[in-house]
Amino acid sequence: MAGRRGAALLLLAPLLLLLAGAAAGEAVEPHPHDDAPAAQPQLPLLIKLPTAADKGGDEAVELRCASWRTAGEANNLSPWAAVPPDCVPHVRAYLTGPAYRSDLDLVAREASAYARSAAASTGDAAAWVFDVDETLLSNLPYYAQHGYGLELFDHREFDRWVETGEAPAIPSSLRLYREVRALGFKTFLLTGRSEAHQGVTVDNLRKQGFHDWDKLILRAAADRTKTATDYKSEKRKEMEAEGYKILGNSGDQWSDLLGYSMSARSFKLPNPMYYIP
Amino acid sequence: MAGRRGAALLLLAPLLLLLAGAAAGEAVEPHPHDDAPAAQPQLPLLIKLPTAADKGGDEAVELRCASWRTAGEANNLSPWAAVPPDCVPHVRAYLTGPAYRSDLDLVAREASAYARSAAASTGDAAAWVFDVDETLLSNLPYYAQHGYGLELFDHREFDRWVETGEAPAIPSSLRLYREVRALGFKTFLLTGRSEAHQGVTVDNLRKQGFHDWDKLILRAAADRTKTATDYKSEKRKEMEAEGYKILGNSGDQWSDLLGYSMSARSFKLPNPMYYIP
Repeated sequence: MAGRRGAALLLLAPLLLLLAGAAAGEAVEPHPHDDAPAAQPQLPLLIKLPTAADKGGDEAVELRCASWRTAGEANNLSPWAAVPPDCVPHVRAYLTGPAYRSDLDLVAREASAYARSAAASTGDAAAWVFDVDETLLSNLPYYAQHGYGLELFDHREFDRWVETGEAPAIPSSLRLYREVRALGFKTFLLTGRSEAHQGVTVDNLRKQGFHDWDKLILRAAADRTKTATDYKSEKRKEMEAEGYKILGNSGDQWSDLLGYSMSARSFKLPNPMYYIP
Repeated sequence: MAGRRGAALLLLAPLLLLLAGAAAGEAVEPHPHDDAPAAQPQLPLLIKLPTAADKGGDEAVELRCASWRTAGEANNLSPWAAVPPDCVPHVRAYLTGPAYRSDLDLVAREASAYARSAAASTGDAAAWVFDVDETLLSNLPYYAQHGYGLELFDHREFDRWVETGEAPAIPSSLRLYREVRALGFKTFLLTGRSEAHQGVTVDNLRKQGFHDWDKLILRAAADRTKTATDYKSEKRKEMEAEGYKILGNSGDQWSDLLGYSMSARSFKLPNPMYYIP
């Protein structure tokens, strides 16, 4: 048991030192003009008391939420309406920290490597389908104001955000998009946004660096009652009927990628905020 | 800068205390009969010096390897022959720590919830397909001796391991399996193992608590040159032709789940060690 006691002491050491520092008036209050903000976020981690109960509780939630997020990416979850409340801190930390960017970058690099290899063996008919929201453009500024997926989706609120036309590009997607265009792929933007938002969507895309595409397909009134899987499959089937060969498909929802007339390869971008069937 | 210096001191504290402990001969050497082995693996983490260079480097690799693992689970990676060498520590930590178990548990719970809801509306023809390796049985003891996926797959070495019949059950899969049987699903075990391993596979499964199944399908000589996707799709098609309705499919490889005659729902168990096309 000496080993366990020793380890517990080691874990407590930062707290003891922090308390000592507090007594000496040192390094506890972040100075408002401190030029090293990167060091500050570590403090809450260090002062957390690793009691057995706390540790088990926090770690158990973190583990479960990480598993929940991974299961979503692997399409293992049933349709879900909102992020589980106790996973909101995990989802927020993921989206606002480096992991989301890292995941996006890696998927874009895989897509890029595939695009280069596929482009060599294909002609004018080669096409790549891109979803828009959380694929080319990010609605993170909106979701940051709406609990990162905790709140049930509010169409009217979200529409107001869409109509600002201020959704930023996802940088790795913009790089991929430009490369795919340069390689000669036809690019089809296939979005669940309604046709009423065509103007603002075009403006938003152009403002963010997406200047050219072969077709931007928005959801018509007749498609409103269809699942995204059906709507997008139908549209892909039409592309095939027009002679295009869909070699790549990038989307943050499995409903962007599954169904019929599926792409030769699909790239699932991460999205732990919402689920569209 | 006081904040940064203070934080650095805080981060160094465990090292200082560890060194102090070492001087006092306490809690450093793990006692061979220490009954708290769980505390030991924390030590290397605590004594790691958080210099800026180390930290950036380590964190960048950790981020990238976590993204690589997630991308694999989402089927975003090209076929890969071995774990990237610099990701072996990440993969080992994942598999031997709580995250792998947590991921397996969550996928099994999702599958279980689905099985209960699906069972209500189906009759005798309802079937569930299970893969064997890394789905019902775990080869982790083998891979722990072979770099956790770093080494290229060695058929002869692996066969020797299979022939010991000592692969342990994945506990959450065993629970799911029993529940699926109790709910009245027919269970089909569809494995890439060769028919030559039928006897040892049956013995291994029974020894680990898998006592009943409706069919155990192993790879015949004629199937050896097919991809797993083709081989398993063909077998699922045969099940459908016999009148079964495949409602669930559990496997650790996308080639267990994709292709044709796909299950109504599929459950992808995590596996960052190897990829089978």
